[in-house]
Amino acid sequence: MGTVGILGGGQLARMLALAGAPLGLRMLVMDTVADACAGQCAPLLVGDYRDEAALAEFASRADVATFDFENVPAESAEWLSRRIPVFPGPHALAVAQDRLAEKTLFRELGIPVPDFVDVPTRAALEAAVAQVGTPCILKTRRLGYDGKGQFRIRSTGDIDAAWAALGAQAGSVGLILEGFVAFERELSVVAVRGRDGEFRTWPLTENWHVDGVLSASLAPAACSGALEAQATAHARSLAERLEYVGVFALELFCRDGMLLANELAPRVHNSGHWTIEGAETSQFENHLRAVLGLPLGDTRMLGHACMLNWIGAMPEAAAVLREPGGHWHDYGKQPRDGRKVGHATLRADSRESLAKALARVGAALGRASQVVPVVERLGD
Amino acid sequence: MGTVGILGGGQLARMLALAGAPLGLRMLVMDTVADACAGQCAPLLVGDYRDEAALAEFASRADVATFDFENVPAESAEWLSRRIPVFPGPHALAVAQDRLAEKTLFRELGIPVPDFVDVPTRAALEAAVAQVGTPCILKTRRLGYDGKGQFRIRSTGDIDAAWAALGAQAGSVGLILEGFVAFERELSVVAVRGRDGEFRTWPLTENWHVDGVLSASLAPAACSGALEAQATAHARSLAERLEYVGVFALELFCRDGMLLANELAPRVHNSGHWTIEGAETSQFENHLRAVLGLPLGDTRMLGHACMLNWIGAMPEAAAVLREPGGHWHDYGKQPRDGRKVGHATLRADSRESLAKALARVGAALGRASQVVPVVERLGD
Repeated sequence: MGTVGILGGGQLARMLALAGAPLGLRMLVMDTVADACAGQCAPLLVGDYRDEAALAEFASRADVATFDFENVPAESAEWLSRRIPVFPGPHALAVAQDRLAEKTLFRELGIPVPDFVDVPTRAALEAAVAQVGTPCILKTRRLGYDGKGQFRIRSTGDIDAAWAALGAQAGSVGLILEGFVAFERELSVVAVRGRDGEFRTWPLTENWHVDGVLSASLAPAACSGALEAQATAHARSLAERLEYVGVFALELFCRDGMLLANELAPRVHNSGHWTIEGAETSQFENHLRAVLGLPLGDTRMLGHACMLNWIGAMPEAAAVLREPGGHWHDYGKQPRDGRKVGHATLRADSRESLAKALARVGAALGRASQVVPVVERLGD
Repeated sequence: MGTVGILGGGQLARMLALAGAPLGLRMLVMDTVADACAGQCAPLLVGDYRDEAALAEFASRADVATFDFENVPAESAEWLSRRIPVFPGPHALAVAQDRLAEKTLFRELGIPVPDFVDVPTRAALEAAVAQVGTPCILKTRRLGYDGKGQFRIRSTGDIDAAWAALGAQAGSVGLILEGFVAFERELSVVAVRGRDGEFRTWPLTENWHVDGVLSASLAPAACSGALEAQATAHARSLAERLEYVGVFALELFCRDGMLLANELAPRVHNSGHWTIEGAETSQFENHLRAVLGLPLGDTRMLGHACMLNWIGAMPEAAAVLREPGGHWHDYGKQPRDGRKVGHATLRADSRESLAKALARVGAALGRASQVVPVVERLGD
């Protein structure tokens, strides 16, 4: 069925490559570093994303291109798209790369969103804080991820520190001030849209973050059908406006039973890793099916699933492998502080048995704090 | 967790490599040809299995060795096993490579088996046919697979032709005469045994062959619990006697509600491909877990599954991909008459919905004859 080129060679590209092999796909991964972990599972082209010679080689060896991270330079995506099909398209990528454009689109589409104001200057920051109120968060418009490039402003007294931390980036990646949402829950909807416009979502997922990095995901999220329908409608309207092709995640805050859109991730997403074992078709396979114009696979769940992220270093596998529904994912990366090096997914037929399995794994690995919020939610 | 070396680089090695990546394993595949399809998913070492220099390189780069086919030269397995752990062990491999040793072991263990007689000479063949009766089948003791190396003797008048076809091999791979079993059904039990002796089986599978090659597998087989218990007991006694480590399949004939053992395949097996989507843990992952001494994964099924083999060339994927429970496996091989180039697995929650999906796929691909026996069985 041809060769799929992936810009970025991290764990998302790795899992895309593993999902592509059974479809008979050849893969080509491009990354800036020679030890990119996807290179263990697919041919790797080492090069800079802004290097036209490297991009030209990439384009000559791939029939279609996609991404494993959203910060691919927009001009590189544009350049590629004049040579081979690129999904999602450069426009969708550009919108998702810029918090201001993204949130403006949310608002245009009637998707509720926390207050936000563009912050081009220090003076604008003062005005923005006055308008949005405290607490609020100053963020870079571009290139932020996993809580990086953010500064929490608790009171007007924090403005100096916030500007000291991020002000230098106002003229490069830009800044945006966002109202702080005292949310009760973080949710995400992972969705896929095909070349022909077919649209599907996996069940709504609840997420827990620690220090801005995803720690655990639970699916299906315990929420009303109305809330799920609302989340799905938001995702669909975004996908249709952007003429999106492939998988994306819409991150949402839930407060007082209402949803507020946080962020659009234009790629397969960490909160969808549970779909590998927990759904009839994984996000990785469906992303490839979408990009190639193949029929989309069924997104329904098989039971209940919880994904636990491993950050920094891999724990002992045995505690997970001993669980009847325990599945292990080691990305083959070197350990490093703060680095996502793997995950585990626990699958069970009932909420009760999932809670018990999580409790056992948390105890065996000395990671009670990671599983307790999920176990508590399962007991609600 | 180290590097797993696999002798043989076909689709079984390919699917082992894909199952090994999430476990964080590095793989090394050795094959005699440079375009071995597992080489698309793992580093490939091209060399002859009898070449000590090639084997030495293989051993130096792998922490443990296993096989994707049973006809690895026994002396090569022995040679390797003096350098790195080899699972299954050379003794189990040697028994499974020789129909006479295998059937003698079945008999010793009280596992019912069709009549068989060693046939070292032409005179022995005449005596054997008189003893076993007609119809019967003359087979090579070693190196037969997928119906190759077999000659059906319908009456004593066929003895000349049988000897003409296979007699020359009596002095090399050896010959055995087996009674012909007018079986009603062909079944297989796919089993796994860990380094610590833990033993598990997947649900019994019913198989349909065409021209000696597997065409379709259905799991769970519609059979009594007593029959399943008997099959499991046979597999367990074999595994324990051989101190087997890894996955194997025991092929069985079912006649008048009784089981007769046909063959032991000392590797992951075509009739277990459905476990990738149809079981909590696939045969491929559990083989690797066993070989590495990790806890074995749960072998229970998720619903009902049917595997359809694609022989010679791949059909159009869309008919399968459109099915909610349709999963595609293209081995990345060049088409060739009689070659296993891929398979599809259909998974469903009920027998009825599986039958309907099979009928749709059979019609869409013009392969009614392949699905009809399975659909009929599901309607029984």
